[in-house]
Amino acid sequence: MITRATIAAAAATLAGRVRHTPTIDIDRGTLPIDYPVKLKLELLQHTGSFKPRGAFNRLLSASIPDAGVIAASGGNHGAAVAYAAQILGVTAEIFVPAGTPATKVERIAGYGARVVQGGAAYADSLAASRARQAETGALEVHAYDHDSVLAGQGTVGREFEMDAPDLTHILVATGGGGLIGGMAAWYAGSARVISVEPEGCPTLHTALLAGRPVECPVAGIAADALGARQVGALMFPIAQKYVSDALLVTDEAIVIAQRLLWEQLRLIAEPGGATALAALISERFVPPAGARVGVVVCGGNTDPGKIASP
Amino acid sequence: MITRATIAAAAATLAGRVRHTPTIDIDRGTLPIDYPVKLKLELLQHTGSFKPRGAFNRLLSASIPDAGVIAASGGNHGAAVAYAAQILGVTAEIFVPAGTPATKVERIAGYGARVVQGGAAYADSLAASRARQAETGALEVHAYDHDSVLAGQGTVGREFEMDAPDLTHILVATGGGGLIGGMAAWYAGSARVISVEPEGCPTLHTALLAGRPVECPVAGIAADALGARQVGALMFPIAQKYVSDALLVTDEAIVIAQRLLWEQLRLIAEPGGATALAALISERFVPPAGARVGVVVCGGNTDPGKIASP
Repeated sequence: MITRATIAAAAATLAGRVRHTPTIDIDRGTLPIDYPVKLKLELLQHTGSFKPRGAFNRLLSASIPDAGVIAASGGNHGAAVAYAAQILGVTAEIFVPAGTPATKVERIAGYGARVVQGGAAYADSLAASRARQAETGALEVHAYDHDSVLAGQGTVGREFEMDAPDLTHILVATGGGGLIGGMAAWYAGSARVISVEPEGCPTLHTALLAGRPVECPVAGIAADALGARQVGALMFPIAQKYVSDALLVTDEAIVIAQRLLWEQLRLIAEPGGATALAALISERFVPPAGARVGVVVCGGNTDPGKIASP
Repeated sequence: MITRATIAAAAATLAGRVRHTPTIDIDRGTLPIDYPVKLKLELLQHTGSFKPRGAFNRLLSASIPDAGVIAASGGNHGAAVAYAAQILGVTAEIFVPAGTPATKVERIAGYGARVVQGGAAYADSLAASRARQAETGALEVHAYDHDSVLAGQGTVGREFEMDAPDLTHILVATGGGGLIGGMAAWYAGSARVISVEPEGCPTLHTALLAGRPVECPVAGIAADALGARQVGALMFPIAQKYVSDALLVTDEAIVIAQRLLWEQLRLIAEPGGATALAALISERFVPPAGARVGVVVCGGNTDPGKIASP
């Protein structure tokens, strides 16, 4: 299991590769909630999501064969792997499902990677990428189920704690669980780390009820970012120990959160990036008295015209 | 002339009213420049620009008559005055020229102000607002030519210095000169404060050459934000003393800066908000060896679909 020491080591590895993203205080009353909240603006990261943290940590922790690297992704992880590969001068092949938005496919290709699009969901792309990996011998960069990827994503927690050491509740969107697994390992119970998922992709919610990762349906507007069919094996014991709740939100709440981020903050968040905030706005999460609440806004790879002109 | 003491007093007045906006470090190579730069993300301020700083400082420093407040604006100042008036529970009338974009007019009206749109440029709206003010007795909130407004905008400089005390060169867009006047008064020569204007609205550039504020043409894509016909009387002696250069950039460079902010940072800046950065990208500004460069990204009130889908 990864630890604060592993994550601190990842932060050292990532120095100069990823941005220390800023936080911003949102006063009570700005959003339709009656308490203040601190947002970590991880959507301002390279490639528009937190994913380069795990991707760089994996690439810089392994020896990379001539065949380069290979990954399956809903889009953001693929963009991050392609970006890291381009910076490090290795080739990348990225497998994405049919539903990955054009903005993300173009972004991956824009970093010089070969993109293979097909299959209904992320899990299909993962299977296709593994068949291809068996042929080429490229280094697999899993979207969430490598220790080095989890530790890289955990640096989001390390930065958030550095910049806001007094937070008591931190809300994070969950797909395959790399980000929340890394962040929960960082906080390790010192603050409550709370998972938020769309009702259409309830992987961690379902897994915690079942006591093991189980396959779930993949649907809804955030499926391209949060549409893993089940949570990772490595993150699950961390979540059992250190994720204090696993909430579900509707797609409607996510859309409202996206619009509020634009109206009140001039931020463009993708559906997955606005999912954690949606739990506050929909009152699926209501903080206890005295809580100090932080929310990670984790991705911005969407067509902004859709948000601003509903 | 306003001083660091005036600006520190304004910061105390503004506490809880405006956001301390974050900065972000942009590594060398992310933008097409070979040095790092620190951005102050003032586009994340309430109402989408820096303008609430001056507006609140004016409203909280004066006694407001029953007739409320009145202002002329290209749009952003009007939105800020309307927002501040709504928060403080007073009525607002805002005069904007015909060219103010619909996004800004809607935003002003959304804060409950009465909007009067007409005339070719900001100066026409100013004349109309003054005629109306003579009838109603409302408190005028000038977009840049009150000491309290200058001091409020100067708090951008105070925050930037708090968060990045080592900067040697700070680039700021100039319209009527409220922001750069306030910031130059804050830095008072301790760092070089550099003005950037579109070639279509060269008010400070022309004034510094002439030795006095002079009327200039108003044209180009940033005219709704930077389209004052001349710089303020109050800011001009500050600029003569403490603004070290007044650069001009093309509209094309501004559009490139907007696209880079979206592509590399997932930020939506309006043309006026991207103008200062355009000076770096177009090499109208080239830092000397050892410089540490900061740029204020001062507004985001635009239709984001225009930036992301060129």
